[in-house]
Amino acid sequence: MIPVADIEAAAKRLEGIAVETPLIESPGLDARAAGRVWIKPENLQRTGSFKIRGAYNLMSQLTAEQAARGVVAWSSGNHAQGVACAGRLLNIRTAIVMPEDAPRAKLDNTRSLGGEVITYDRYTGDREAIARSIAEERGAEIVPSYDHEHIIAGQGTVGLEIADAMLERGERPDQVLICCGGGGLSAGSAIALRSRFPDVRIHTVEPAAFDDTARSLASGERQQVAAEMTSICDALLAHEPGRKTFPINLALTGPGLSVSDDEVRHAMRFAFEHLKMVVEPGGAVALAAVLAGRIETRDRTTAIVLSGGNVDAELFAEIQAEPN
Amino acid sequence: MIPVADIEAAAKRLEGIAVETPLIESPGLDARAAGRVWIKPENLQRTGSFKIRGAYNLMSQLTAEQAARGVVAWSSGNHAQGVACAGRLLNIRTAIVMPEDAPRAKLDNTRSLGGEVITYDRYTGDREAIARSIAEERGAEIVPSYDHEHIIAGQGTVGLEIADAMLERGERPDQVLICCGGGGLSAGSAIALRSRFPDVRIHTVEPAAFDDTARSLASGERQQVAAEMTSICDALLAHEPGRKTFPINLALTGPGLSVSDDEVRHAMRFAFEHLKMVVEPGGAVALAAVLAGRIETRDRTTAIVLSGGNVDAELFAEIQAEPN
Repeated sequence: MIPVADIEAAAKRLEGIAVETPLIESPGLDARAAGRVWIKPENLQRTGSFKIRGAYNLMSQLTAEQAARGVVAWSSGNHAQGVACAGRLLNIRTAIVMPEDAPRAKLDNTRSLGGEVITYDRYTGDREAIARSIAEERGAEIVPSYDHEHIIAGQGTVGLEIADAMLERGERPDQVLICCGGGGLSAGSAIALRSRFPDVRIHTVEPAAFDDTARSLASGERQQVAAEMTSICDALLAHEPGRKTFPINLALTGPGLSVSDDEVRHAMRFAFEHLKMVVEPGGAVALAAVLAGRIETRDRTTAIVLSGGNVDAELFAEIQAEPN
Repeated sequence: MIPVADIEAAAKRLEGIAVETPLIESPGLDARAAGRVWIKPENLQRTGSFKIRGAYNLMSQLTAEQAARGVVAWSSGNHAQGVACAGRLLNIRTAIVMPEDAPRAKLDNTRSLGGEVITYDRYTGDREAIARSIAEERGAEIVPSYDHEHIIAGQGTVGLEIADAMLERGERPDQVLICCGGGGLSAGSAIALRSRFPDVRIHTVEPAAFDDTARSLASGERQQVAAEMTSICDALLAHEPGRKTFPINLALTGPGLSVSDDEVRHAMRFAFEHLKMVVEPGGAVALAAVLAGRIETRDRTTAIVLSGGNVDAELFAEIQAEPN
């Protein structure tokens, strides 16, 4: 288990780097949920997702010698932007291996933040092998997207900010819903939330086709999903829980929830119409779980994380044009 | 001049009614402005715009006898939703005269909030005459969209919240940019902002084709724009400054800024890509003024209001699809 002090230390490091995103309310969402729902909009975060938190927390702790050799990462796009942005802020060279069919906004933003982007074919390529060969060649450090203590602690500052903002308002969450790919955000946030609210229930939310964490939490052991699955939630396509994140999620969260792609699309329309926010598919799963009634919200206080907003305008328009 | 105490009293009335929207920062916008820009996102407000503030502040001060006879208003859509929502919260019957070509979302939301919508033809009808005849028939009170002390005080809570949030952060705004139709939001906000920051410069921002306030501020007298003008900013199509709002704006704001519809469209794309927020055309004029360089932002601290987010999905998609 990572001590909450590591998350508090990460929060210090991130002061003036990450945006302290607000905790916001929506009377429209409260009415729909028949309870109180607090929203943590990490789509408003620097780089459009929470990923800058973990990336900066890790990269700012590299030695000068390590930093001089640069870093390598692989990512479908949000971690890529987080790493590239942290690299620019810390003056560290960054190379990121990304699928060639990643959302255009994620590819473009990673490059415009100074990241060197190496693309691969999502279905035939091995991104880890590509990244490891670059790392070896350059003597560069690898910045994992979730399975590292510093990444988990950095992402945990999201939970810390939720907890502290609720304490400040005199509110107490009954439950917190957090999207889950590899499980770094939920693991770190669970540690922070439980340190402030020992009884709060924390639920991961995944795309139904990538519900490896939900099934792993149910069985108590790391389960994999089939390699051929697909989902609109490009940010959450992990096939199994992390080695380091899973024990934390197993101890502090559950049961895991999951939502269909159609429920995600509906949530993105709800966010446009009622929250006036741009949320990407993977960023909308916790909202989708509330709207689809995956968990009781009546007369409860629920907090949800909107984890990112990096969606291409074409897909966004396509989804908005669909009937509700 | 309206005393700031009236705005503080309005803020009390609005507790638990209006959302206390956050003051947020965007490193991407700061970089573009070469200075610090704080954003007050009233698109995240209940009903999707700031208008609930003034409507509720006025309607909650009606006598029981007045309330029982209901209210009438005219509006292109945001004031309509504010009035309908306040009516639902206060159990007051509301009738709102709206142009038949108002954004569908505004018409639908007004109805779903329980407002009785009476449509008219924007080019041939006289909305005031229609509203006044209904008011006379029913003995109903008219809720003006800007030219009333209680409306001005209610909208002024936006400026009050900006000022108090900046004081809390130890920040001091050099200038605040506020969109302007009839001038209620800018007048009320200017009173509140000047009470906390006596030297702050406040600028109204209008669509270039509806720059009646800018020209009136320059000449010192209320000027009209031609009746046949059009703009994408459906929320800001006032032809002349208000009788009550103008003297306040003349005393506390200026010079007035204006932006083209193309600059507004660009700002809406910037908000999607970089702020991850849905902003309607009229809500984006202050952002547009920053992005178009209508005012010096380099090394300054600027606050801007995003006043609303009620835009139809079709228009939003059309604008996002345009080249930058």
